[in-house]
Amino acid sequence: MNRIIKGKQSLLFENAPYIVSAASVTGSKEAEGPLGKLFDMTNEDDLFGAQTWEEAESTMQKEACVLALGKAHVKADEIRYLFGGDLLRQGIATSMGVEALQIPMFGLYGACSTSGEALALAGMSAAAGYGKYMLAVTSSHFGSAEKEFRFPLGYANQRPLSAHWTVTGSGAFLVRAAEPDSDSKNGQSRCEKTALPSEDDISTAHISHVRIAGVTIGKIVDYGLKDSQNMGACMAPAAMDTIVQNFEDTGRNEQDYDRIITGDLGYVGQSILFDLVRGKGYDIRKIHLDCGMTIFDRETQDTHAGGSGCGCAAVTLASFILPKIENGEWKRVLFVPTGALMSTVSFNEGASVPGIAHGIILEHWT
Amino acid sequence: MNRIIKGKQSLLFENAPYIVSAASVTGSKEAEGPLGKLFDMTNEDDLFGAQTWEEAESTMQKEACVLALGKAHVKADEIRYLFGGDLLRQGIATSMGVEALQIPMFGLYGACSTSGEALALAGMSAAAGYGKYMLAVTSSHFGSAEKEFRFPLGYANQRPLSAHWTVTGSGAFLVRAAEPDSDSKNGQSRCEKTALPSEDDISTAHISHVRIAGVTIGKIVDYGLKDSQNMGACMAPAAMDTIVQNFEDTGRNEQDYDRIITGDLGYVGQSILFDLVRGKGYDIRKIHLDCGMTIFDRETQDTHAGGSGCGCAAVTLASFILPKIENGEWKRVLFVPTGALMSTVSFNEGASVPGIAHGIILEHWT
Repeated sequence: MNRIIKGKQSLLFENAPYIVSAASVTGSKEAEGPLGKLFDMTNEDDLFGAQTWEEAESTMQKEACVLALGKAHVKADEIRYLFGGDLLRQGIATSMGVEALQIPMFGLYGACSTSGEALALAGMSAAAGYGKYMLAVTSSHFGSAEKEFRFPLGYANQRPLSAHWTVTGSGAFLVRAAEPDSDSKNGQSRCEKTALPSEDDISTAHISHVRIAGVTIGKIVDYGLKDSQNMGACMAPAAMDTIVQNFEDTGRNEQDYDRIITGDLGYVGQSILFDLVRGKGYDIRKIHLDCGMTIFDRETQDTHAGGSGCGCAAVTLASFILPKIENGEWKRVLFVPTGALMSTVSFNEGASVPGIAHGIILEHWT
Repeated sequence: MNRIIKGKQSLLFENAPYIVSAASVTGSKEAEGPLGKLFDMTNEDDLFGAQTWEEAESTMQKEACVLALGKAHVKADEIRYLFGGDLLRQGIATSMGVEALQIPMFGLYGACSTSGEALALAGMSAAAGYGKYMLAVTSSHFGSAEKEFRFPLGYANQRPLSAHWTVTGSGAFLVRAAEPDSDSKNGQSRCEKTALPSEDDISTAHISHVRIAGVTIGKIVDYGLKDSQNMGACMAPAAMDTIVQNFEDTGRNEQDYDRIITGDLGYVGQSILFDLVRGKGYDIRKIHLDCGMTIFDRETQDTHAGGSGCGCAAVTLASFILPKIENGEWKRVLFVPTGALMSTVSFNEGASVPGIAHGIILEHWT
């Protein structure tokens, strides 16, 4: 059986699946940011040839999937299952985006944590032997998200400094099962004990040294905050909960990770996260990154607390994080996309904004 | 490895997990319908003590989960992962509903197919050995759904005869992994070869003879229909696709199932389904049921095309279908919840309404 259950919320895979390719598609503002040159595809007017923001977001998802497949020379009909989601009501960006691929699919909603949710389920399904290839994809779009959660762009509403800027982008990840039984007998998911890729793998895949070694699935964490314009504060407790749970489940601590990378806590959420984690006896300040802080330049891009959205963590992982794990600069990363669980209806009815965060353990293997 | 991959979209589990308990919570109209006496909990004013329809829906989800756990004498902290979803934007009924249970959770969106999606993932996770217990829950509420997709109830808008009546209800299912290796060597998921429940199981569980023998995960199927008030027609092609794929993947046909039960095609969708399936060379008329047609009385309840919603298939499964499998009246059932993938935004922008359907193979075992 290809799994080890660890603690309450985590799984470490005996025969860990790997990420064989990844692709990032973003809008113009992201292209002008610090990671701009790393994205696979960007678009000048953020419409990607479509008539609406929602269609544009769908187009990004489709392009990201097609690019990820193309990089690994894998056809859509070789993909067993697709796990995808976005921020829009009823997930229409995903259902319109992946329709053309005709892959059996699971629609997901985890707010901005969805890239973690999708990677977790893709990894779990591949590790369970349910198919050779799984595809995980998420997206967000500034135009569609403002319309969904706040105001249409034409209103030109002002935003508080604690507000995030939704990333226009989509990231797709092709997850491949390890060779059967390659290391199923040793009960460890360590780099040195995993299967080597075949010659064929090395020649065709852009990524061949990154494995999904395990996952820590998050609970809903609610500190009672109600300010939907301060999502960093709403999500920080969930990020803390998942990170600390990962440490407890695996017997590790901050010294066992080269980086712990949250999704989109931003500047406000990061400082809260540091305090909360310190209260549990850990100090992650030296190894922490946040995709929302990485993707935009705070000084020049006027994005307030930082980037956010299902696409934020996804495109940062695809373009910036995975290459560093692939080349061995980082040996083990805990990737923790964070989500704020709210809607305009729950906000208007006075409900709080709970958070959720899913942890994905990514390891370099040779 | 506990799985057999069958064909393109299906999995048959070698060591199939079972449904150890199920619970149904519904509103007043459902209580007056043909299945009324079978539901575990109903409420007179459909508010369940809450102030809003959304909160009421959340309460139903929580109560359904608590009831399902209670029936099996399992505590929430024994549940490894929860898979849940609803119809509302950003899935707030689920995140508000299951928050108190503090179970690591995956938020799902598959429109009215979500109960199938949740059961599939719960079954896949249990069969993979990722934990002993998984919980699947979905809900819908007439008041919150009308507000979400059409008009607030106070508008008293008229509805065409092809429209569905969203079921106010929530169904929860506790899925338990089979005993390890109990029948992992025979490579079959047949009733007579599965593990027997222990004495303890028999004395504590309300259900002990129903297994999730396999799944057929659906693709998005789009015939280009745009009438969101005729969801039966929009979803029927997806139901056909999944049913026929299940036949092809497993080498079975309509004679191998005692019942094929769709989610909420209703009267309009059923006749389309029959035609489409006949076009593929099968005839399921004698064994077909539809939860949307079963849950309301067409003559007296004025529900037009039938019931719909994430809760429709879920409460019908929990209250009506599972007992018939449990007592052996039906030996093998293909349960196929169907979803129409749309939002008010996609509808207003002129997008079509594609469908999706997930098939769950439920078997009586002794």
